[in-house]
This record gives sequence, C-alpha cells and structure tokens, in this order.
Amino acid sequence: MPALPTSFTLDLPDWLTDLSAGLPADFPTLPQRMALVNDLARRNVAAGSGGPFAAAVFERDRGRLVSLGVNRVVPLGLSCAHAEVMALSLAQQALGSWDLGAPGLPAHQLVVNWRPCAMCFGATLWSGVVDLVIAGDGPELESLTGFDEGPLPATWPDELRQRRIALTVGVGRDEAVALFASFGRSGAPVYNGRGGGRR
Amino acid sequence: MPALPTSFTLDLPDWLTDLSAGLPADFPTLPQRMALVNDLARRNVAAGSGGPFAAAVFERDRGRLVSLGVNRVVPLGLSCAHAEVMALSLAQQALGSWDLGAPGLPAHQLVVNWRPCAMCFGATLWSGVVDLVIAGDGPELESLTGFDEGPLPATWPDELRQRRIALTVGVGRDEAVALFASFGRSGAPVYNGRGGGRR
Repeated sequence: MPALPTSFTLDLPDWLTDLSAGLPADFPTLPQRMALVNDLARRNVAAGSGGPFAAAVFERDRGRLVSLGVNRVVPLGLSCAHAEVMALSLAQQALGSWDLGAPGLPAHQLVVNWRPCAMCFGATLWSGVVDLVIAGDGPELESLTGFDEGPLPATWPDELRQRRIALTVGVGRDEAVALFASFGRSGAPVYNGRGGGRR
Repeated sequence: MPALPTSFTLDLPDWLTDLSAGLPADFPTLPQRMALVNDLARRNVAAGSGGPFAAAVFERDRGRLVSLGVNRVVPLGLSCAHAEVMALSLAQQALGSWDLGAPGLPAHQLVVNWRPCAMCFGATLWSGVVDLVIAGDGPELESLTGFDEGPLPATWPDELRQRRIALTVGVGRDEAVALFASFGRSGAPVYNGRGGGRR
C-alpha cells in the first residue's frame, strides 16, 4: 500500500514571527496582555493567515510572554490548528514539558479573545495552565461570525475550578466583539468541518 | 527579548511507521478496523512511545486505511498529542484538506479505542468525519487507568447527530478494557496536566 503520512508541522505566519521580535518581554497587566491578543487576531484576519482568533501564554505573575498563537486552520489545512492549540503547544515546546504546571515551573496563564471552543476547552484542561483569561463567553462569537464553537457542559466554569484553573472573563471584550462583527460582515469562509455540520 | 517558538512537529513512533508499511490497504469490517486500533494502542504502551490510546481514519465504505495515530503526549512533550489529533491531522495532511468531509472526498470514519476525551470530542466535530466508531463509552477508562478524560455534555451523542456524525459504540470492547486494566496495574504515569488537577 502507499506509505501513510507520519508527521505534521504547525507554524506561525511570518508576519507574527517578525512582529514578535519587537515585542516587550513582559506584559504586566491583563488589559495589556489581552490588547496584544486582540491585536494579533485582527492582524491574522487582515493578513489572510487564519481565522479571527489569537491566544498567548504568559507567566501569570510577572507577565513574561512565553508563546503566541493564531488560528491557522485554513492555511495549514489542519482543523486542530486553533489559536489555543498553537499557543499551548509552542509554550510546552519552549519549556520542554507537556505540563505547563509541572513542579519547578512558574504559574502559566492562557489569554484568548473569547471562550475556547469545545476542543480548546479540553486542550486548556490538559495543558497545565493555572489561569484562563478570556475577553467574553457569550453567544456573540457564534452569532456574529457563524462559527460553530461546539458544546461545553453547562458547568464549564466549575470544571475549570475543579482542576484548579482560575477564570477571568471580560477583559478587552469590546475589541473582541468588534473583530467578530467585522469578520462576519466580510463574508470570509467559516471553516468548521462540513460547513459546521448543523447548517 | 529571546525569540519565541514558532513551530512544532508531531510524528508517529518509528515502530508504527515500520509496521504500517506491512498493513493491508483495506480493512473491510468494523471489527477488523478496531482490532488494528486496539493492537496499536497495546503496542504503543509496550514500546514506551505514549499512552494506551490509538486511532485510525478510514474511508467509511470500502475501509481504505487513510491514517493512523497513537498517543504521543509524553514522548513529544505536547499535551495535545492524543491519538485522535494525530490520526485526524495526518489524514487531513494526506488529503490536503482541513475538512475530511469536503465535497469530492469519500466519507471518512474515525475509529478509536474509547470515547474521545473532552478535547478530542471537539477535534472530531471539527474534522469533517461523518462516522465515529468507539470500543466503549463507559467509566472503565477513567476508573481503570486514573486518567481524567474531562467533561462531555450529557447530550454528546446528540451533539454528534446534530452535526451528521454517526456513532457506533462497543466494537472490540473487551480488548480495549483489558488494555486499560493492564495499563492501570503497571503504575505507568498518568500524564494529565498537573496530575489531572482533581487529585
């Protein structure tokens, strides 16, 4: 039989690699951290390098930037290439650990421009981060963009809490909603598998 | 600031690459497909190349094998490297599409040796597969191995159905449970981030 595929690579777009070289090392406040994430999401759409989502991993206490991620599903041809998977995996690679909460590591925080989808909620649980900061958690993302974000259990904040992951909602919310509205108006493709299935 | 990481690669273990070269091209029946998956999960533990989970993507109707995956979290240092993410991503790479249900492609099926975890349930929704076959869906996996599989909504089979993904449960169940029991007895590490959080 023909050889099966054996490896795949996920990478950030060139513009983000270039931009990251000029960023400060530390982002002391949550609004600064989310402003970066909202800006990257906006740039990702403008550059045509993926969907309107970005994420970053920081050291929670001093705000050291550890990794960045943007949605790369369409350019990479991989439905798992969501911003959170990118940022969490790049942080784990940088630190050499599949557990960002391993003994000896500083506490790590994931910052995202909305509530993670069903897949990325699970990815957050398994990553070892101790803190999740999101711009919002309401229906605006799905209603403005047309994306299917999948089901979370109604008790999702409790599920985080049970695993000792703190949750902060509502940082940089207006900027996040404005991007979703702009993306929705643009007619850009909604890249859920099979058109989101439900349509 | 030091350069941030910009890419990461996920690959299959060498033994699986070698083994796959000798596999038949087609697996006509569901028991044959799951027997392959159960065997790969068992071999993955025996080889020390990851956790007790495997997955494969097939063309649903004729059973053509499209991709294989095994859990690679600990060897790769990436918490997203679950068997389903490996198999789905490798299938998408082989087909050049982030949507395994794109127009013009044959119907694709994901076969896994238990109900996907919270992350991989979402990954299945976004992959474009039209069919999910699992060895079982009960508490045996968590109780026998100690893994935290995360929360799925109580309506998870409906969530699949709403997205036109068919579900088959209970193929090769005894072999799957036997592996989980053996893994649990072995004292092998449970690699949920931060020890599963809940412990």
